[in-house]
Amino acid sequence: METVNYLLGYEKLKIIQDKNSFHFSLDSVLLPNFVTINKNIKKILDIGTGNAPIPLILSTKTDAEITGIEIQKKSVDMAKKTIELNALTEQIKIIEGDVRTYPLETEKFDIITCNPPFFKVHKNSHFNESDAKTIARHEVTLTLSDVLRISRKLLKNQGIIALVHRPERLVDILTEMRKENIEPKKIQYIYPKQNENSHILLIEGKKNGNPGIKILPPLYVHNEDGSYTKEIEKYFS
Amino acid sequence: METVNYLLGYEKLKIIQDKNSFHFSLDSVLLPNFVTINKNIKKILDIGTGNAPIPLILSTKTDAEITGIEIQKKSVDMAKKTIELNALTEQIKIIEGDVRTYPLETEKFDIITCNPPFFKVHKNSHFNESDAKTIARHEVTLTLSDVLRISRKLLKNQGIIALVHRPERLVDILTEMRKENIEPKKIQYIYPKQNENSHILLIEGKKNGNPGIKILPPLYVHNEDGSYTKEIEKYFS
Repeated sequence: METVNYLLGYEKLKIIQDKNSFHFSLDSVLLPNFVTINKNIKKILDIGTGNAPIPLILSTKTDAEITGIEIQKKSVDMAKKTIELNALTEQIKIIEGDVRTYPLETEKFDIITCNPPFFKVHKNSHFNESDAKTIARHEVTLTLSDVLRISRKLLKNQGIIALVHRPERLVDILTEMRKENIEPKKIQYIYPKQNENSHILLIEGKKNGNPGIKILPPLYVHNEDGSYTKEIEKYFS
Repeated sequence: METVNYLLGYEKLKIIQDKNSFHFSLDSVLLPNFVTINKNIKKILDIGTGNAPIPLILSTKTDAEITGIEIQKKSVDMAKKTIELNALTEQIKIIEGDVRTYPLETEKFDIITCNPPFFKVHKNSHFNESDAKTIARHEVTLTLSDVLRISRKLLKNQGIIALVHRPERLVDILTEMRKENIEPKKIQYIYPKQNENSHILLIEGKKNGNPGIKILPPLYVHNEDGSYTKEIEKYFS
């Protein structure tokens, strides 16, 4: 069942969601607010765009041309309706396809964003590989290596890739980025609340960038009393 | 000129320092308070021990045998006097030598700690290579790769290396650790104050450990008004 919701914190943005599919989440809101946008950015690609929350939020920050690519037809349909509903068809293009094989222009993108599947697939992982949630969450159709290899190919020299991921995978992410000549440049850790370990990682890497990384101030989701912090309330009020 | 000071926050510990040498610092206090100590720890090595602040603080936490190795004679002399002054000669042994060549027992240590030189040496770096501060701060006599290669050799299987370093070098540290089959297991970032980038990195790796890392809650050094935070005051009161 599809429902139309307002994208929380963004009065003007409506988003179409499916109760049985993968809802837009804190991850999808944090990433477009983390990535470095400036006036020179002309082309952005969002890999595994789902129902397009990231392109939607990016559209409030830049006039760049934004492309979202998504492998799941149902999500593509919702993304397209969402874009129409927001009258953003001029700025945002949605492609149905597998980013590993779809013929996108190489070395043309200034920024690539991606909220990839987080979980490694092990030999004895049991799940239905055609399930929408499984595809969005597990590295069934798209692995971290895929995302970085493809990004290297599609990014301009000095172009940026921004990922939202899980801190448990930090070492994989950094070593795989370097392998692809994508130099990690900034990280922000998100914590559920004070005195707990980080549960979300935001990271930006630059194609052929110089070594040297910045660790930004941490961001907490909840106050001690369970309410949202001011920083997060901005996005979810 | 040597002076005897109390190791701040540790009423019973005195430390001998040289005004012209490299004083013990916040780094040296944070590391022994970060590393995972338990009852099974029998042998600890501190590489580049200086005037021995790390062994000194570790001695308040464990009965393990602690060895400090230091290349600079002046620091070794101060370390030895410090150990005697604190009546810790039974527990702490100081070796004058280059850890790259000194014949230490292999695969015998449960924990290795190190506050290594932070700065990469570039072709056009200009400094006096025999200067005590230069040796302590720049990778002249000991590089990050040295520390990790040596640690792999000296650590028991599943033994732990704990480093204090600069966040700018995060990617180097993680990739070099993996190269040596030392799996990064926990990180804590230290921030000068709220809303500033991290300036100190604490990291623990496990020899032949399984992948998966925890990012601990951040630690702030100063409050908004410039005073020490409660967490840091514990160490520097």
